[in-house]
Amino acid sequence: MADLESIQKKILSFRNERDWAQFHDPKNLAEAFSIEAGELLENFLWKTTEQSRNLSPEELKNVKEELADIFIFLTYLSEEYKIDLLAEVEKKIKVNEAKYPVEKVKGLAKKYSAY
Amino acid sequence: MADLESIQKKILSFRNERDWAQFHDPKNLAEAFSIEAGELLENFLWKTTEQSRNLSPEELKNVKEELADIFIFLTYLSEEYKIDLLAEVEKKIKVNEAKYPVEKVKGLAKKYSAY
Amino acid sequence: MADLESIQKKILSFRNERDWAQFHDPKNLAEAFSIEAGELLENFLWKTTEQSRNLSPEELKNVKEELADIFIFLTYLSEEYKIDLLAEVEKKIKVNEAKYPVEKVKGLAKKYSAY
Amino acid sequence: MADLESIQKKILSFRNERDWAQFHDPKNLAEAFSIEAGELLENFLWKTTEQSRNLSPEELKNVKEELADIFIFLTYLSEEYKIDLLAEVEKKIKVNEAKYPVEKVKGLAKKYSAY
Repeated sequence: MADLESIQKKILSFRNERDWAQFHDPKNLAEAFSIEAGELLENFLWKTTEQSRNLSPEELKNVKEELADIFIFLTYLSEEYKIDLLAEVEKKIKVNEAKYPVEKVKGLAKKYSAY
Repeated sequence: MADLESIQKKILSFRNERDWAQFHDPKNLAEAFSIEAGELLENFLWKTTEQSRNLSPEELKNVKEELADIFIFLTYLSEEYKIDLLAEVEKKIKVNEAKYPVEKVKGLAKKYSAY
Repeated sequence: MADLESIQKKILSFRNERDWAQFHDPKNLAEAFSIEAGELLENFLWKTTEQSRNLSPEELKNVKEELADIFIFLTYLSEEYKIDLLAEVEKKIKVNEAKYPVEKVKGLAKKYSAY
Repeated sequence: MADLESIQKKILSFRNERDWAQFHDPKNLAEAFSIEAGELLENFLWKTTEQSRNLSPEELKNVKEELADIFIFLTYLSEEYKIDLLAEVEKKIKVNEAKYPVEKVKGLAKKYSAY
């Protein structure tokens, strides 16, 4: 069974074996996110929001691979800054809870800055 | 102590309390990734790759928050497709191992398609 | 009346006066596009495709500014490579005409690679 | 000789012949920008800023095609809002001149919000 820590170790081993850490400065890693995000988005282009819920099996396979890639780059950037990603997520949830109080935003979708 | 499953539950609870799942079709979630990736990248704009390793404390704080946001959207998209993200990552590592054999790519950085 | 050439000159003068060409290597300019594209996209996030046709005046103003920014970065990258952008566009239209023959694609929307 | 207006007409004719305006709502067009921006950026990934100034002929060809694509989508979005793109650029230059006074920013590169 996969657990987070062992997966993160595999991701870092993959890189070490290829001696790729030298290219993985944060600027390049942040670019990789934008590129992967674009590849993910391409699966939904020209679709309505409704249609986006019904991907073809090929598109769904692509999407899963892009999500995995994004997780891999998350791991590299977290390693760069020696941060505990889950702890950062917990902090961010608290920030978001303060920013978007239930009684103010329930059932409403707006740009972040519009609240 | 934070563990993956409990964090993912918190992320989904945050959404349920606000009744936001209705807006979280995959097309919109994929857009959110591109937007977050752009916000992450903004912290490195106009820097050299060298400079990108030395962020100010404020920039570093921003970067951590963006990484957390990206993880949050990963969780929402994984939930949409009922996928086990870590299992997908394991599969992708195997795909990448076949695509980038150590003896061929060690110490080299090229566009994916250039190998 | 604004014409293309005089606008492009103004864009380059703006940069020269600030001595910013030194930061405008293509890698950074390409990052700027991703960042601006994300800012543009933020105006449409959580909207349906239908809703995206009805922006608020404030959103519309943002969109116009983002389009202008994108044009400005197009000008800087074109200058970097000393290319005639309009001539490149003409060439690309011909490439697209060959790639997407009317009789094959009329009224159909697919991912580029799906034809 | 290519001039702006005749190129914009060609771009719109290309679309009309294929009956594609129906898919070109602003949300989808904005997504297209993020995707194209990612494809542009891919040509610079894993390079230093120095290396980004020395692309291979194949990479340079890719870059030119991406710039042309971006211009094409700029034309579609400008048509959607019936805006005069060059006039918007002129306005934006004035906004930028006020935002980044020469005496304050000359020779300095910072995040937009850092001034």
